[in-house]
Amino acid sequence: MPAVQDFLSPSEILKQVDGRKRVVIEGVQPEVDCGQFPIKRVSGEAVVVEADVFSDGHGAPFCQIVYRWDRDNAWTPVPMRALSNDRWRGEFQVSGIGRYRYTIEAWLDEPGNWRSDLLKRIAAGQDVHLELLAGAQLMEQAAGRTHGEDAERLREWARALRQERDQERRKEIALRENMMSIAQRYPDQRLIVRYEKELTVWVDRERARFSSWYELFPRSCSPQPGRHGGFRDCEAWLPYVASMGFDVLYLPPIHPIGRSFRKGKNGSETAQPDDVGSPWAIGAREGGHKSIHSELGTMEDFRRMVNRANELGLEVALDLAFQTTPEHPYVREHPEWFHRRPDGTIQYAENPPKKYQDIYPLEFQTSQWLDLWNELKSVVQFWMDQGVRIFRIDNPHTKPFLFWQWLIGEIHERNPEVLFLAEAFTRPHLMYRLAKLGFSQSYTYFAWRNTKPELTDYFRELTGTSVREYFRPNLWPNTPDILTAFLQTGGRPAFMIRLVLAATLGANYGIYGPAFELCENTPRELGSEEYLNSEKYELKHRDLEAPGSLRNLIAHINHIRRDNVALHSDRTLHFHDADNPELICYSKTSADPPNVLLNVVNLDPFHTQAGFVSLDLDVLGIDPSRTFQAQDLLGGATYFWRGSRNFVELIPESKPAHILRLRI
Amino acid sequence: MPAVQDFLSPSEILKQVDGRKRVVIEGVQPEVDCGQFPIKRVSGEAVVVEADVFSDGHGAPFCQIVYRWDRDNAWTPVPMRALSNDRWRGEFQVSGIGRYRYTIEAWLDEPGNWRSDLLKRIAAGQDVHLELLAGAQLMEQAAGRTHGEDAERLREWARALRQERDQERRKEIALRENMMSIAQRYPDQRLIVRYEKELTVWVDRERARFSSWYELFPRSCSPQPGRHGGFRDCEAWLPYVASMGFDVLYLPPIHPIGRSFRKGKNGSETAQPDDVGSPWAIGAREGGHKSIHSELGTMEDFRRMVNRANELGLEVALDLAFQTTPEHPYVREHPEWFHRRPDGTIQYAENPPKKYQDIYPLEFQTSQWLDLWNELKSVVQFWMDQGVRIFRIDNPHTKPFLFWQWLIGEIHERNPEVLFLAEAFTRPHLMYRLAKLGFSQSYTYFAWRNTKPELTDYFRELTGTSVREYFRPNLWPNTPDILTAFLQTGGRPAFMIRLVLAATLGANYGIYGPAFELCENTPRELGSEEYLNSEKYELKHRDLEAPGSLRNLIAHINHIRRDNVALHSDRTLHFHDADNPELICYSKTSADPPNVLLNVVNLDPFHTQAGFVSLDLDVLGIDPSRTFQAQDLLGGATYFWRGSRNFVELIPESKPAHILRLRI
Repeated sequence: MPAVQDFLSPSEILKQVDGRKRVVIEGVQPEVDCGQFPIKRVSGEAVVVEADVFSDGHGAPFCQIVYRWDRDNAWTPVPMRALSNDRWRGEFQVSGIGRYRYTIEAWLDEPGNWRSDLLKRIAAGQDVHLELLAGAQLMEQAAGRTHGEDAERLREWARALRQERDQERRKEIALRENMMSIAQRYPDQRLIVRYEKELTVWVDRERARFSSWYELFPRSCSPQPGRHGGFRDCEAWLPYVASMGFDVLYLPPIHPIGRSFRKGKNGSETAQPDDVGSPWAIGAREGGHKSIHSELGTMEDFRRMVNRANELGLEVALDLAFQTTPEHPYVREHPEWFHRRPDGTIQYAENPPKKYQDIYPLEFQTSQWLDLWNELKSVVQFWMDQGVRIFRIDNPHTKPFLFWQWLIGEIHERNPEVLFLAEAFTRPHLMYRLAKLGFSQSYTYFAWRNTKPELTDYFRELTGTSVREYFRPNLWPNTPDILTAFLQTGGRPAFMIRLVLAATLGANYGIYGPAFELCENTPRELGSEEYLNSEKYELKHRDLEAPGSLRNLIAHINHIRRDNVALHSDRTLHFHDADNPELICYSKTSADPPNVLLNVVNLDPFHTQAGFVSLDLDVLGIDPSRTFQAQDLLGGATYFWRGSRNFVELIPESKPAHILRLRI
Repeated sequence: MPAVQDFLSPSEILKQVDGRKRVVIEGVQPEVDCGQFPIKRVSGEAVVVEADVFSDGHGAPFCQIVYRWDRDNAWTPVPMRALSNDRWRGEFQVSGIGRYRYTIEAWLDEPGNWRSDLLKRIAAGQDVHLELLAGAQLMEQAAGRTHGEDAERLREWARALRQERDQERRKEIALRENMMSIAQRYPDQRLIVRYEKELTVWVDRERARFSSWYELFPRSCSPQPGRHGGFRDCEAWLPYVASMGFDVLYLPPIHPIGRSFRKGKNGSETAQPDDVGSPWAIGAREGGHKSIHSELGTMEDFRRMVNRANELGLEVALDLAFQTTPEHPYVREHPEWFHRRPDGTIQYAENPPKKYQDIYPLEFQTSQWLDLWNELKSVVQFWMDQGVRIFRIDNPHTKPFLFWQWLIGEIHERNPEVLFLAEAFTRPHLMYRLAKLGFSQSYTYFAWRNTKPELTDYFRELTGTSVREYFRPNLWPNTPDILTAFLQTGGRPAFMIRLVLAATLGANYGIYGPAFELCENTPRELGSEEYLNSEKYELKHRDLEAPGSLRNLIAHINHIRRDNVALHSDRTLHFHDADNPELICYSKTSADPPNVLLNVVNLDPFHTQAGFVSLDLDVLGIDPSRTFQAQDLLGGATYFWRGSRNFVELIPESKPAHILRLRI
């Protein structure tokens, strides 16, 4: 927790501050929770900073951002420019990854104010003899605060101003703008006001902002039905996954699976002898979080697969599920890390009245919490040593926030390239807190936002409010836990709709495959979001060549994503009106290179829907009086549109969406 | 400036915090600029505090406000209650004046969570034997953290729970709610999370929130035309001012007036020998800010008038205009407090290209700034010693913000009853900053807000946003500097309209009289807001009994204000729809005692306006199905209304407004 920020007594003001500091800096944006948490950016992005900066009296301030990468020795200043109503704006680029700090400095701009007053006096025809001498004084004072060339130029200018006899030439000398700019650089250090907080930017590598995830159970990769698959089989699938254009391959836990209270097929409480159990039931005689389930292969096999994936442009992400089975080595070796019930038995997981006897939660309330934290950190480090740089964290909202803040902070100290995805499907404040404290990306409520108002409201919150400074959405239309009613009932078009939405609303998105591309959509029972015969509890064998697979569409869409930088970020997302409630229309834009994408999606998987969209042409940078091209990257057609109002018609089975690249 | 609040490194987290603290406190409201400034209240008011408070996992937190008056020895806890979505709310009363501190504490509510889980388990028919033992353990742990009666009761309860054999009776014992409430009071101190900031409330006496000001030039109080009036004459006017129901009598500066560059009538640059000069041109041979202009009387006369005013329920407010004439003693005694031009002369006031040669601004950039600050503080102290407790500060926005923060803080350390009104007509950020740093009340843009959208937008900003936590508007329809175009052109009805608006939109308001009640409205010239023959530069002699004086209306309205507590605060201001753009409709309400006032004002001084108002009955606490009384406190009639939509008709000359007291 940060230090207490207390109200200053009047006498403390005098102790700490030179009473001649005249400038006020407030209302700084971006600033997360009073600067307690960093904003997030990726390498190469700009940080635009605004603040209200003003002084008493008539004088205008000079304002600058100062910023510093943690590895830099010095602060870099960047002047800010005045907007209206005492608001100032500036920006700087972040190039390195890791932590940047930024704050604002301001002071009364004496040279600038002197010059603008002088202009007014001259315009009013006043005698400015004394003002010119005052200007010379100002420049001499500035010269006294520096040396070398600038000092010399300022003194020379002051001399000229004092010596010149011709009044018109004197004024001309006085108004030389470059002199003022030099003098502005050397203010009286004692009078510089520095914003009271140093704010931070956490800079990730670009994948934190733009990534396409594919979730796969390696044990289902065997070419033979009924045989347990492993990393070697998984290797054979890598070209398939890569060909669809994904760049992150996420594997559920790969550790030994417990046997006691093992869940059977469809999560049944009694397992049959050949049931393989849930990968999230971690820990058996053979080992725990640093071991590999023997049927998947060896550590060597794992490393080989990771390398092979990298060669294909795929990064392997592992699952961190910090919980154990009753057989996990921790239970023996560190009984103090578990909660004991009054009868001496260890407390299994519960959400009363529900009981999960196959899982022991770790007891973060243990007096040995620090040992526990360090051990869990060593788990992360262990897999980093095997080449992993992305982790998907299972249920982070059931472990202490402080633990994650510490863990991610510790890892990032040395390895700022590591990314963490928070799988927290819980209340909004908890999800946002996890993002603030360090998670690089976060699961969202996207899976359950189906209608136009639901999608619009939610994505405005995510991308148009301060949430966007720290929370990076990663959109999943399905997961092994989530088969939504929309997918269950809407058939193949529903999968196409949700795919397009995920891949274009979110710069980060992912699918759980091959269930997704094969449009698997049978629930365990009516009203359940569980898959029937869920892969969580059994091996699957699938025909990747099955007719109707969405693999080509997925490949096409991921290709569009890579080619269009507008889709690499969520900050420019903007919704446009459509007069049909089943049609949703939104754009993403990029200035450099210029790239304007307009998406129109038919949210109805059953019926063709048509209507007029009304585009905010300003946002799209389009001249209302000129025809523009709308090239459908998905369907291939090119439309010639003019003005805001344009007609669209979308057909669920064959053309559920437009992804239009606009060109003037 | 507060201490730097910096990002904590992971290892710092562990040094400062017990890793078992599970609860997060964020989004605390009210909180001004991250707690840098206090919120404002008056004695007897409630401070309602909200925060987002949550824990990881399933457990709910226990939350409390803790608050402390600066003179209290200990913090007082007040439990908060859960709203929806992890939001919590609580409140406390402030009774003493001065500074209060408040913050929030929270921890995992083990007894509460145990009990609610137990209820779920029992409802599910589970065996709860172990859970009852766990409950006994919890109570014993709580007992171990206290002593005396509570410890005894908790142990007894735990004993009963352990010993009772009848399962049904055991459950009954377990669920006794009072036991849980006792246990909740004794959490493990190590696990209490305290919000990282201590926030402050500045509590003023009630007059800071509710006051009626009357501005008067004592030199115009003489009963004889042409004779310079003084405090003795002013005394004779006190009953007149008191009879109109005012409670603050504000006098422009009462100090010796300078002679060099003295302004003549209508501000002319050349004064005639008998011109009296502007009271704001402070300082002459006879003295400066601690002296009285001899023609006004003696210090003894002043004190006598102050006492006489107090007896009539009037408090005298003085003007603090920190500037001097060239003759002010400071110029001789402290030349270092003034800015010298390159030719050695002192810099007079300027706003280039305008020059004000009769005024020397004080040079706050002097290296002797601390001496200057202390001298100005001694001026305030001097007049406090004469019995003054309210100051109206002239142009505070042209002196350093830090100076005011220090000055007001210093005075308030010993005299929290002193009130300061900021006369800053400048840009919004500057006005709000002055309020944040300590001014008790502030002038506003009210004088220039005439139309319904202007008034609605502005007053929503003042009373419906965080501005209301620190900025107390004081509404003036006129001042000696401000005769608005609306008053110039709208005749007597314009004065009535602006009076009703000021007195009902603002709990604090004031008029510059007798110019106001006599409806003086001739400008110096077309397009000017200056009065013709302004009292700032000459003596006035007026007939207070002139026909058409608004004195009775003013008395009536001030009487209504005193009688109706809804008008004593601005926090409940709510605008209701009216279908005629010239009719503005708004309410103020009080719960205790119940008082609901609905105002409808005709903003058009020329024409009768009629239309339907659509009331937000919820806000007014009115049952839509029942008839309610609307008693016009201004006009006397009583209307019987039902439902939201009601007709009104207002006539500029005779009935420009309704002030309706609603009763069910």
